[in-house]
Order: sequence, then structure tokens, then C-alpha cells
Amino acid sequence: MSEHVMLEHGGRVRAAAQRYGIPENDWLDLSTGINPNGWPVPAVPQEIWQHLPQDDDELHAAAQNYYGTSRLLAVAGSQAAIQALPRLRPPARVALVAPSYAEHAHAWLRHGHQVMPMSAAEILDIGDSVQVAVIVNPNNPSGRLFHRDELLRLHERLVARGGWFIVHEASMDAAPEHSLAAVSPQAGLVVLRSVGKFFGLAGARVGFVLAEQKLLHALAALLGPWPIAAPSRYATTLALRDSAWQQQTRQALAQAAQRLSGLLTRHGLPPDGGCGLFQWVCCSDAVRVHQQLAQRGILTRLFEQPHSVRFGLPRDETQWARLTAALSELQR
Amino acid sequence: MSEHVMLEHGGRVRAAAQRYGIPENDWLDLSTGINPNGWPVPAVPQEIWQHLPQDDDELHAAAQNYYGTSRLLAVAGSQAAIQALPRLRPPARVALVAPSYAEHAHAWLRHGHQVMPMSAAEILDIGDSVQVAVIVNPNNPSGRLFHRDELLRLHERLVARGGWFIVHEASMDAAPEHSLAAVSPQAGLVVLRSVGKFFGLAGARVGFVLAEQKLLHALAALLGPWPIAAPSRYATTLALRDSAWQQQTRQALAQAAQRLSGLLTRHGLPPDGGCGLFQWVCCSDAVRVHQQLAQRGILTRLFEQPHSVRFGLPRDETQWARLTAALSELQR
Repeated sequence: MSEHVMLEHGGRVRAAAQRYGIPENDWLDLSTGINPNGWPVPAVPQEIWQHLPQDDDELHAAAQNYYGTSRLLAVAGSQAAIQALPRLRPPARVALVAPSYAEHAHAWLRHGHQVMPMSAAEILDIGDSVQVAVIVNPNNPSGRLFHRDELLRLHERLVARGGWFIVHEASMDAAPEHSLAAVSPQAGLVVLRSVGKFFGLAGARVGFVLAEQKLLHALAALLGPWPIAAPSRYATTLALRDSAWQQQTRQALAQAAQRLSGLLTRHGLPPDGGCGLFQWVCCSDAVRVHQQLAQRGILTRLFEQPHSVRFGLPRDETQWARLTAALSELQR
Repeated sequence: MSEHVMLEHGGRVRAAAQRYGIPENDWLDLSTGINPNGWPVPAVPQEIWQHLPQDDDELHAAAQNYYGTSRLLAVAGSQAAIQALPRLRPPARVALVAPSYAEHAHAWLRHGHQVMPMSAAEILDIGDSVQVAVIVNPNNPSGRLFHRDELLRLHERLVARGGWFIVHEASMDAAPEHSLAAVSPQAGLVVLRSVGKFFGLAGARVGFVLAEQKLLHALAALLGPWPIAAPSRYATTLALRDSAWQQQTRQALAQAAQRLSGLLTRHGLPPDGGCGLFQWVCCSDAVRVHQQLAQRGILTRLFEQPHSVRFGLPRDETQWARLTAALSELQR
């Protein structure tokens, strides 16, 4: 992929390895919000690799059951929907929370829309000139959780003027009671989900768009046949059905999040927000904290506006111990 | 995927099962041109599923070595390129061989281009009003093979007027000496390859665009990040490197193609064309032949213009015996 189209994602361990002179395999990567103990994928049968993906396999049924809604479309990660949705409307004024996941603004700008970055408080009170609002819930990196009622009020105002309300629930699976999935489909409501974070299947490139059938038809036509690899459909179907794993994982993530928050607090880095998959720490010396951890081979995600560091979850006790030791050695 | 966007692909066994009252698992599916003995994919390591696909993994290097060219872009199957290329030119007159793979015409029409279907002879002699020519080589279903020299002459004429020559080499791997891959990159030349047919990895959704860097950059920007699943990148990298398997498979496919051609000929269905992966039989009673085989649970691909049946390769001796028996019982 050419560099000029890529926002800053991934490949971060490789870059850090070069910058800090530490071999790639020696890093503890806490720079993502991906569950480090993802759903364990079994070997994929050869016939799944062999044949074209079948749209009438069991993926949609498994997803309908998991998300609790009848109308959805499987796409090649929520990224595919983020790129396609701006192509399905004439130029509009689009309100987005900033900072947040940057691909949303990038995609709307690219297709001639006017993007209005605003705070979480502002977006809940947007004026009549806005046709589309995009919220990541819980937001990333802040972890700020919008409540269903405030989101539904915002949706109501947007749909009254023929607008769309897009809520990207990338990290919602750890606390699904806050999701709008179960109230979907509704006119003008678009909920984006994926199996990248909670299920730890970011490599599979499977996401879902929950929306009205008319919008899903238009999206499907735009995306064309076979956007998702057959092994990814296979693995995702099984993961979505594994409710025992999901329940254990929700508990484990809640405990891990609490543990990470406590650990950071004890080391002078009390989180300003977070969710089941990451903790977010604002501090004026964020660069220094990020660099000192990197010098010990621990990669976090650094943000500049505001100065902050995001911590993903360690995978096991060895990784917890390594993070604890590095935090103890911080010089600020 | 919504039905209104789907040309007739896949799901054919399911439809045939319903139509002929034969359970899906009892069918011998010869309706595809996919190698029934595809590259055997090992279990994919969990960390591959876990992380976002990395554009700087080893896939591009493996593909550069396999195709013998330095400039290429991995895409989510050649279908992704077929859909995107028409978006990278202002409306043009586009010449295509008909009949052929229908997605090409569909994609160009959809983006406002004028599509001119023509015969194989006509396309080699197109007038100056055409800016883009698309050829599937070997063609499907006819198996007609265009020779490098005639294709390069056509390319030369198109590029002189700022045009594009797109050659879709979906079934080329069985006889790669006819490929234009090794003469790529050249201005205005676009070669599409994939691992669906020869490698039997249609489920992986991995293809390659071989073209000038400028075009690849524009295409990458359009397609966005992570179009290919990480397990698919992993499997394809290994398959492209397995030259021993490739060599054995070329020999095995050549023998199987000859065997299938002979078998069909002995049963009054001499092929009018074919390649390493399928044989094509024109006959006025094509519908009857197709139906009689289907009544015996053998699915072939029926074409109406011209009346013809395409036969893929049986996988093993059991399947060969079953096809032989069914052909012996044909009543015409």
C-alpha cells in the first residue's frame, strides 16, 4: 500500500524497532486496542480456501443472533464501510468528534463533504446545518462512552432532516449494553461493528454494517461480490457463535481493565478514560513517558492533541510484570 | 450480498440442489475453472489472525518473484481491480471481447463508460476511437489464447493515444509463457492475476495488479488500507513460494486437460477450446447435455451465446469415473 494514502496505523512495531534499536520480536506491543487473548481460530478446512466465499453461508445468521438485529451486511472490516458511506450521499456537512479515529474524517473529506470537527459536548448539540454525524462509541482514545438516550436524541434530530447518524462501535463488545445494535434498523441510523478488537481478529477484516435494508443494498452494490475472504467468514461465524468464550472474555477484560487502571494510577499515571480494551492517560510529559517505555521495548500509542498515552492490555503475567517493572523505572 | 448486484456466480451448487432435488453434498461440481487440487494451506498461526494485515510483510516480494516483475499491488482478488479501474479514468470507449467474464463490462458501464463488445478478431483491429481494451487471456469460456505479439501490438496502439490495455490472466498460471507479466511494467499496460484458479485459493480473495507505479499508487489510494485478510496474505505468500508444487501442478493440469478433452471427444463432445483448467464444448443441444448431467448430480457451466457447456476438472479417480459413467449415459 502506498504511503501517501496511509494514515498512521500498524507497522508501528517495525518503525519502533528501527528507531530504538530493539529487535521486532522483543517488543511488548501495547499500542493497539486489540484483545491480546483473541478467539482461538482452528485450522480452516481446505474446501473453505478452495471455493469463492458464499454470501448465503451462515455468517449473516450468526451475526444477526450476536448483534440482536435482523438487518446487517458483512463487510471487509468497518474500514470498508467508512470508505464507502461517503460515496452514498451528495456533499453534506459532516460533524465528527475530534480527536477520534481519523479514517472517518479522511473518507468524508475525500468525497467532497465538509467535515466539522467538534467536542463530544458540541456534537450532541449540533445545529440544523449538519446532515451527518459520526461518533465512535466508546470513543478512541478517550474511552468516553456516549449513552444510548443522548445518541438516540441526536439520531432523531438528524433523521428528521434526512440525515444520517453513524455510530462506530469498534470497542463496544466488552460492554454491549451501551450498543445501538438492538434498536437497529432505523431510518438514518448506521451502526458499525467489527471482530477486530474484542474478538482479537483484526487480521480477518470482517465488520458489519447495521442499517436499513435500502442502505445495505446500496452499500452491497457499491462493494461488489466477495469482499470478505472465505476463511475469515468461517472463523468469524464460529467466533460469533461462541457465547461461552464471549462471556468469559467480557469478565476477563473487565478485570484486566481495572488492573491496568490501578497499575497506572499507582505509578502516577491515573487514566483519564478507558474501556475494556485500553486506558488513556493525559499528561504534559506524554512524549517522555512514551519514549522511556519504548526504550524498554514497550510500545504505547502516543497522541499529541491532547498530550496523552494510550495503553492496551498485556497478554499474560510475564507481560504484566514487564510493564510493572518499566513503570517503576519511569523518571519524570 | 444483495441479489441485484450479483451477476451469476457461485451459489450454483445450492441452486442446482434445489432445482434437481439432489442434496448439496452429493454434487460433483465441474462448474468452476478452479483447480480441484489446490495448494494445501497449513493452519494459520493465531498472531496472523490477531493483528492488522501488514503491507510490508513478505507477500509483495513473493509475488514479484513469482510473476517476474517489480511493480505490482496485491488486491482483494482481481475483482477488486476490475471494480476500481473504471473509477480511475474519465468516461472512455472500452472494447471488450464477448462473451467473456461479465464483471468487466458491468464495472465499466457502471462508471459511465461506453462498452463495445466485440469478437477476438475485431478487438485486435480496433479503431482509433477506443481508449481502453480489455482481454481475458486465455479467454473464458472459450479458452482462446491470445499471443504475446498480437497483444503487445494492441497495447502499443492504445498507449500511443493515452489508452489502457488490460489483460486479465485469471487462468494463465498453467501456461505462464504466454503471460505479459514479465514485460510489465509499461505505460498503459495493466495485467491482472490471482491465486483463485491455478492455486485453487478462490476463497482467499487475493489478486495482483501489475502496472506502472503511478497507476498502482492511484489504485492503492482508492482501495484504502487492509483490503486483504492477514491469513490470506500468509497463505498466498507460502503458495507463491512453493515452486515445487507449482511445477508438479502444471504437469498434472496439462495431463488432466488432455484426459478431459479426450474423454469428452470419445463421448461426442469434442471441445472447441480450453486451457489447463477447463474445456469448452459448443453444441446446439448444450442445454440438454447440461441438464442430463445435472440429473446425475454433475454440475457443469451452461452458456447460451453460443450454446455451450464448460467442464472443469475432476479431482480424483472417483470423480473421473463418475463423469465417465454419466457421459456414457447421455441421450442426445
